[in-house]
Amino acid sequence: MRASRFFISTLKEAPSDAEIVSHQLMMRAGMIKRLGSGIYTYMPTGLRIIRKVENIIREEMNKAGAIELLMPLVQPAELWQETGRWDKMGPELMRVKDRHGREFAIQPTSEEVVTDVVRSELKSYRQLPINFYHIQTKFRDERRPRFGLMRGREFTMKDAYSFDRDVEGMQKSYATMFDAYKQIFTRFGLKFRAVAADNGAIGGTGSHEFHVIASTGEDALVYCPDSDYAANMEAAEALAIGERGAATQELTKTSTPGKTKCEAVAELLSIPLEKHVKSIALTVENEGKKTYFLLLLRADHELNEIKVSKVEGLKEFRFSTEAEIQEVYGTVPGYLGPISTRLPVTVVADRTVANMADFVCGANEVDYHHIGVNWGRDVAEPIVADLRNVVEGDASPDGKGKLAIERGIEVGHVFQLGTAYSEAMGATFLDEAGKPAPLQMGCYGIGVTRILGAAIEQNFDDKGIVWPDAIAPFELVLCPMGLDRSEMVKEQTEKLYADLVAAGIDVIVDDRGLRPGAMFADWELIGVPHRVVIGERGLKEGNLEYQGRRDDAATSVPVDGMVAFIKGKLGK
Amino acid sequence: MRASRFFISTLKEAPSDAEIVSHQLMMRAGMIKRLGSGIYTYMPTGLRIIRKVENIIREEMNKAGAIELLMPLVQPAELWQETGRWDKMGPELMRVKDRHGREFAIQPTSEEVVTDVVRSELKSYRQLPINFYHIQTKFRDERRPRFGLMRGREFTMKDAYSFDRDVEGMQKSYATMFDAYKQIFTRFGLKFRAVAADNGAIGGTGSHEFHVIASTGEDALVYCPDSDYAANMEAAEALAIGERGAATQELTKTSTPGKTKCEAVAELLSIPLEKHVKSIALTVENEGKKTYFLLLLRADHELNEIKVSKVEGLKEFRFSTEAEIQEVYGTVPGYLGPISTRLPVTVVADRTVANMADFVCGANEVDYHHIGVNWGRDVAEPIVADLRNVVEGDASPDGKGKLAIERGIEVGHVFQLGTAYSEAMGATFLDEAGKPAPLQMGCYGIGVTRILGAAIEQNFDDKGIVWPDAIAPFELVLCPMGLDRSEMVKEQTEKLYADLVAAGIDVIVDDRGLRPGAMFADWELIGVPHRVVIGERGLKEGNLEYQGRRDDAATSVPVDGMVAFIKGKLGK
Repeated sequence: MRASRFFISTLKEAPSDAEIVSHQLMMRAGMIKRLGSGIYTYMPTGLRIIRKVENIIREEMNKAGAIELLMPLVQPAELWQETGRWDKMGPELMRVKDRHGREFAIQPTSEEVVTDVVRSELKSYRQLPINFYHIQTKFRDERRPRFGLMRGREFTMKDAYSFDRDVEGMQKSYATMFDAYKQIFTRFGLKFRAVAADNGAIGGTGSHEFHVIASTGEDALVYCPDSDYAANMEAAEALAIGERGAATQELTKTSTPGKTKCEAVAELLSIPLEKHVKSIALTVENEGKKTYFLLLLRADHELNEIKVSKVEGLKEFRFSTEAEIQEVYGTVPGYLGPISTRLPVTVVADRTVANMADFVCGANEVDYHHIGVNWGRDVAEPIVADLRNVVEGDASPDGKGKLAIERGIEVGHVFQLGTAYSEAMGATFLDEAGKPAPLQMGCYGIGVTRILGAAIEQNFDDKGIVWPDAIAPFELVLCPMGLDRSEMVKEQTEKLYADLVAAGIDVIVDDRGLRPGAMFADWELIGVPHRVVIGERGLKEGNLEYQGRRDDAATSVPVDGMVAFIKGKLGK
Repeated sequence: MRASRFFISTLKEAPSDAEIVSHQLMMRAGMIKRLGSGIYTYMPTGLRIIRKVENIIREEMNKAGAIELLMPLVQPAELWQETGRWDKMGPELMRVKDRHGREFAIQPTSEEVVTDVVRSELKSYRQLPINFYHIQTKFRDERRPRFGLMRGREFTMKDAYSFDRDVEGMQKSYATMFDAYKQIFTRFGLKFRAVAADNGAIGGTGSHEFHVIASTGEDALVYCPDSDYAANMEAAEALAIGERGAATQELTKTSTPGKTKCEAVAELLSIPLEKHVKSIALTVENEGKKTYFLLLLRADHELNEIKVSKVEGLKEFRFSTEAEIQEVYGTVPGYLGPISTRLPVTVVADRTVANMADFVCGANEVDYHHIGVNWGRDVAEPIVADLRNVVEGDASPDGKGKLAIERGIEVGHVFQLGTAYSEAMGATFLDEAGKPAPLQMGCYGIGVTRILGAAIEQNFDDKGIVWPDAIAPFELVLCPMGLDRSEMVKEQTEKLYADLVAAGIDVIVDDRGLRPGAMFADWELIGVPHRVVIGERGLKEGNLEYQGRRDDAATSVPVDGMVAFIKGKLGK
């Protein structure tokens, strides 16, 4: 490519609504252009990156035996009604009426359509397993679109759907996709981590998220550096810390006037925070009847609401109101505790709390806390559950070391869906005995356009973006110095350009006639990973200047060896 | 590709709603699957064809210097209001509201968005000319979607938009695109014709349509076999037939009871139809005032309404009502003529009629016609205009021979738009003097998915589709006979398959284990243009059987020479 025949449009300043670095850099580098809230035109440089991402995904999906098709954007409401998602999805699902008043969804995902294809096309166990995917524009009417391509409304996604005859087959298909995803993210050249995830609203029996590691990531990823264990914060199991010791203190009520926070009580009493327990009051309403739960957590731990919702009886919990707290505990929030409640309360202690002895907690009386509380003696043994977020240094649930935490950006998600969709839509196959059975389904998504934002959050510096080779808009930029003045530079540029193209290198030559400073700044901002400068002075000595985007200085490379040198750098 | 890892699903019968052959064959070959009215899933075989079509378009667009980007599907109403198309487009434009009640269009085309991109990105004449294109899903809410991909609602289109500083530049950009289109359709391997077209509602100063030639085509294309002249029926100029001779007959009124059609009058009077003139009464209303026109056409010619609308004063014509005809002519339709009207009438004669002498026409009296009518003597010299459709054998307007007519399917359209959009949206550039001037625009569309239907209408037989090599889902199918029984066949199939893949041939091996008849029928229906059969009997003599999709019989080709033979067939 020649820059003079391409469209490059860089900005010194990012627009003020660009809050995060990837959004700022993509706008400054002219990769995207805002058309509306969460809706962007992919400008030529941005589109090149998207195509490279798509091609890697496509190659690996094909290798893994998935078959590409293309499902429509505009999908009849009737299909979405079959699975109930027409109502469940809420305003995020963009709906549209045609000229005859018939309703359609603009696809945010295609479980319904692929299941409809499959229920009419697949008849026999002999056709299984099968895995269909497409790479298609999606629309989600986000409440608050932001962060550029990270949370847009119109975006590109690869979604795949596997169909199997039984759970074992589904798990095999799932494992194949899991491996393909690892291969895809490895080929992107991004640091990533696959973590076990909670299945959430989509249902099914297992799921993993794929995250691009970035300190700016929204999600906390838990992993064990000494083993394979990895889960997102929602799903990471927290083991008990410590063993329960024998009681050594008497139960005492002590005055803690105005101290409603554990930290303040700890300071006042000079007792370490890890000896304090915080109490969280929950209410569950069922057919008008209220039941009350008190969750106990070590004072320095964080509640994990996903885990709470998995405790028996707590699927539909809410936090108790102040009025309820007054009624049940006879006090105000800040002095809650498990001892002497006014109404019956189910006490659920986090695993760590259940192992504590001589701890401090609220006395259900304003301005008072209990000291020296012990299980069995002062309060009945509680229900024990995993209620908290893990923290750095926790023991890994697989027993193989300690947990570490890093931040990530979710770019892929794989699900074992089971028969949720196939049963709702009557998608069955005939087994060997000719008996119909529901298809076992898996679904597998990658946020194509989101990858761009995530890759940048992981790879940038103060000059701009630093693309990994595989998804860079160009692998290499040739920067000739004084193209219009020096016949020697012009000749050598043309020759090298032709040789590089012939060698299969994705090269752009900057023939715009800019000054070196402006030229270099553009390509550093855009993030092309390799640069070769062609100057008269070097040429007279038979040399060109190579500099990698992360290098501090340039390297002289003989003209004749440059193509081989670049091929070496690119591993080609 | 191995058929066992692909998805092939053929049908014996086409669904009853498939009215035309391309729709029937695409459904039977499992290339598309209906999701809703005018909305199709592109199944794996169909998608492969679409990708090949897209890639050829992309390569040629890039070669022609156009730059690819990707504009959004969901576009803010405000932009469409700027050009007035939000109101003008009517129900064909699919409209949608987001969760905040803001209105959007689902793009049927992207003039507004590209002009918005350009008005903020292009500042200077130095950036011109530029041509942006994208290949994107479009939606048009057709009143009556039908014919499969030929008139769908959701479809894929390549649309390009050129921007120039002046008309001369725009015409140059237009010529470049015109040439690229010729190259694209040539590479598809389709018989096509570019014809001059009327600019129609889109405005501007020139346009051409690209048609795939097919006897089933909706459009009539006019061309001169001895020259470059070609136009669609709307735009093809009809010259006068014959020279006006001297008057030889007296004007006579003759009784023609009940004969309201020229054909009937001709038969009754035994005067050849070419001596008869039909009269068509028009009304133009302007601020409540009516004026009347009478169009005269040779009896065997067809009126061309587009041409009529170009006659001065007739831009907004309508056909006169029977009441108006009574008032103006004192008669009923069927006996109209230019002589003795009750109210003043502007007579507009087609060029051919203006050259007639001694002709027959209505006498403005029920059951009477005039015979021996002559211009100047019996009726004043008329306004002369081109009012009719050309007919086969008409003289070519370029004076180089006679016109022929064939039928075509419109698959591309190029327009010189001028400043219609740039002025409406304030898209200007600064010229050398620093003065803003509106951008001169061109737009260029190709109906990607429509190409599939058109290619089939041109290339099919009673066994199925016959794809040209360049856009076939696979170039070649390998059909091994008895793959499960013969080690020799299996070995040779694997070796040949590997060699063909290595030679860059897009080959599918049918390893499904079907009987020969079913296997051949599938691939003939799908339309793979080349087939090689691998059988034990042939192998024992060192031969394989090659058959082209249009060949009547197979040819024996030595095993060792097969790859070269196929490469020769494919011109690779």
